[in-house]
Amino acid sequence: MNLRPVTPEDDDAIWRILEPTFRAGETYPIPRDVSRADALAYWRTPGHAVFVAEDAEKIVGTYYLRANTKGGGAHVANCGYMVASAAQGRGVARAMCTHSLDEARQRGFAAMQFNFVIASNERAVRLWQSCGFEIVGRLPAAFRHPRLGPVDAFVMYRTL
Amino acid sequence: MNLRPVTPEDDDAIWRILEPTFRAGETYPIPRDVSRADALAYWRTPGHAVFVAEDAEKIVGTYYLRANTKGGGAHVANCGYMVASAAQGRGVARAMCTHSLDEARQRGFAAMQFNFVIASNERAVRLWQSCGFEIVGRLPAAFRHPRLGPVDAFVMYRTL
Repeated sequence: MNLRPVTPEDDDAIWRILEPTFRAGETYPIPRDVSRADALAYWRTPGHAVFVAEDAEKIVGTYYLRANTKGGGAHVANCGYMVASAAQGRGVARAMCTHSLDEARQRGFAAMQFNFVIASNERAVRLWQSCGFEIVGRLPAAFRHPRLGPVDAFVMYRTL
Repeated sequence: MNLRPVTPEDDDAIWRILEPTFRAGETYPIPRDVSRADALAYWRTPGHAVFVAEDAEKIVGTYYLRANTKGGGAHVANCGYMVASAAQGRGVARAMCTHSLDEARQRGFAAMQFNFVIASNERAVRLWQSCGFEIVGRLPAAFRHPRLGPVDAFVMYRTL
């Protein structure tokens, strides 16, 4: 697997990954009917460093890295990751997380925080725990899951 | 005390409240050298409902109310409050918090979350607790306080 910075030519491939995940509405607090333009603008917000994961020259995942806040909180990074549904279970998310932790360290961040890991996304919670993140907060019923109804969300954190 | 929606004519009064707080850098994760334009753009980001508190026709505080996230998380509100330094200790923050909880209910929010209450801001932590908020998360050393060094930040939450 190859991790590299995004280019504008990757927009179509990224949207093919983002669209089904946002449409399902089960893992990100993003409107299910978000437009392609808004979704790409969100993923590639100014200040986000965006990377793609390639396997056999096909983009199978993408993530962004940013400072979670500014000023006195600017030493804490934040990331969002997404894996193509056809590439689930092949270690893409773990590879991106490992890459992002290295990138964050190189950029001088001292910690990384995930603000909103939906509790029903158990695979993600376990994966982030295995990558060194701890659950440091629980937001009660902070997410309305389209199938499960109200579910908690976790704040997860690790030092770098 | 009178709480009312902001108008563009309030910019100067709001900046007089924001500037010393942001310059001190002890309570908000905002760059201490933030410009007037950037500070006002942050406070009045599109999607923020902004209010001011008036006492004897003088603006003594301001707060914003917004959805903390979108999609499945859009039922959780978020607010930021700031009181003029000359008006501290007169119940302005509590009055604004009470007003914001009512506003949030009227707008259909089901809960309110504060993402980054700096632990050394003990007066604020106690005030929010007395307004029904609980500490649901602790972000270790997530804030570099200009006098105290690394301090924790709290995530606080209450249902409406």
